[in-house]
Amino acid sequence: MAGEVVLLDTWASMFGMRVRIALAEKGVKYEYKEENVKNKSPLLLQMNPIHKKVPVLIHNGKPICESAIIVQYIDEVWKDKSPLLPSDPYERAQARFWVDFIDKKVYETWRRMWLSKGEEHETAKKELLDIFKLLEGTLGDKPFYGGDSFGFLDVGLIPFSSWFYTFETYGHFKMEAECPKLMAWVKRCVQSKESVSKTLPDEKKVYEHIVALEKATTGA
Amino acid sequence: MAGEVVLLDTWASMFGMRVRIALAEKGVKYEYKEENVKNKSPLLLQMNPIHKKVPVLIHNGKPICESAIIVQYIDEVWKDKSPLLPSDPYERAQARFWVDFIDKKVYETWRRMWLSKGEEHETAKKELLDIFKLLEGTLGDKPFYGGDSFGFLDVGLIPFSSWFYTFETYGHFKMEAECPKLMAWVKRCVQSKESVSKTLPDEKKVYEHIVALEKATTGA
Repeated sequence: MAGEVVLLDTWASMFGMRVRIALAEKGVKYEYKEENVKNKSPLLLQMNPIHKKVPVLIHNGKPICESAIIVQYIDEVWKDKSPLLPSDPYERAQARFWVDFIDKKVYETWRRMWLSKGEEHETAKKELLDIFKLLEGTLGDKPFYGGDSFGFLDVGLIPFSSWFYTFETYGHFKMEAECPKLMAWVKRCVQSKESVSKTLPDEKKVYEHIVALEKATTGA
Repeated sequence: MAGEVVLLDTWASMFGMRVRIALAEKGVKYEYKEENVKNKSPLLLQMNPIHKKVPVLIHNGKPICESAIIVQYIDEVWKDKSPLLPSDPYERAQARFWVDFIDKKVYETWRRMWLSKGEEHETAKKELLDIFKLLEGTLGDKPFYGGDSFGFLDVGLIPFSSWFYTFETYGHFKMEAECPKLMAWVKRCVQSKESVSKTLPDEKKVYEHIVALEKATTGA
């Protein structure tokens, strides 16, 4: 059933983590190939010639690109275990809407906060916190975004929690103070889901990686 | 089955046209409400508070936003007629990938070409043509992107053809000369699909709308 499954990824990619969590939820064994984003492999360029980005899932030699699309593919192919998308069409549309919202907003806003100073930095920081507060509001009193079970939107958002320490350090805020219910959800995911706890990298390691990247880029 | 279906849209929106074509393919009756993007209705702001954009489909009082998500919702709710998404998971992933590619690239590149001059204009024009050539290559020798039948990617791309005259006039090129196979596909869609021919607005009317918009914006 599984066939040959290969994942091209980089360890700190929140988009790659989505795919690793989905594969772990489904119990799919796969070969992991770490990419170097500064020196992309010929395989990556061949498998994702359009965007040239990780993650790429290669299933029986055929590539699937874009993390939200890959997670839906995984959910459709390995459908007998841990369903991720809700079964109700309206709930599915809502889950897709919020993952799309995350894709459009979070990384871009963080990047703007990271690379700017002064007023622009403060504006981006406020926007980033507003995004997380909006996502926190969407959770409501449910244990998971998928309701009682961990679902598509949980998979789509939880990888970003491994970057929260980096966001906090660069932005001078505390997620626990700003979004306590969201942080309770993060803890719930980590404590109850081995797919999450075994996938998310150490938050300090992510921060050191970003600091090193910044030094390499700016020569500081 | 259908329930109450309302569409908030603007006539020239290629994203709104996707939804109108999908609803026509499924034979769903709905109430169309034209929005004024310069003076958005309280209903639009209430139904899409996040992006504040058309199209919004309101089904039994509940809103669905973002055109690609709406079309998937329509396909899932009215599943007995004219299936749009392919049944094979890999083909589904590919159709989603290309619609996502269109969403990320076409409008933004057109906008850059429209609003720039000189070298920047020429760069954007080349990028826009490269995008359409890539999409033309993806069609291959199939009659439709969905293979023998009109599918999700056909719905996702065909509305842009009503803007081709505008793209050509601002970019000084001819789609027929640049992408003959893509233009043959456009003709095929228009001739064989009433959902398309009855939805797409007159291309000259789109162009006049953009010229008027430009004059209103620049005061030229």
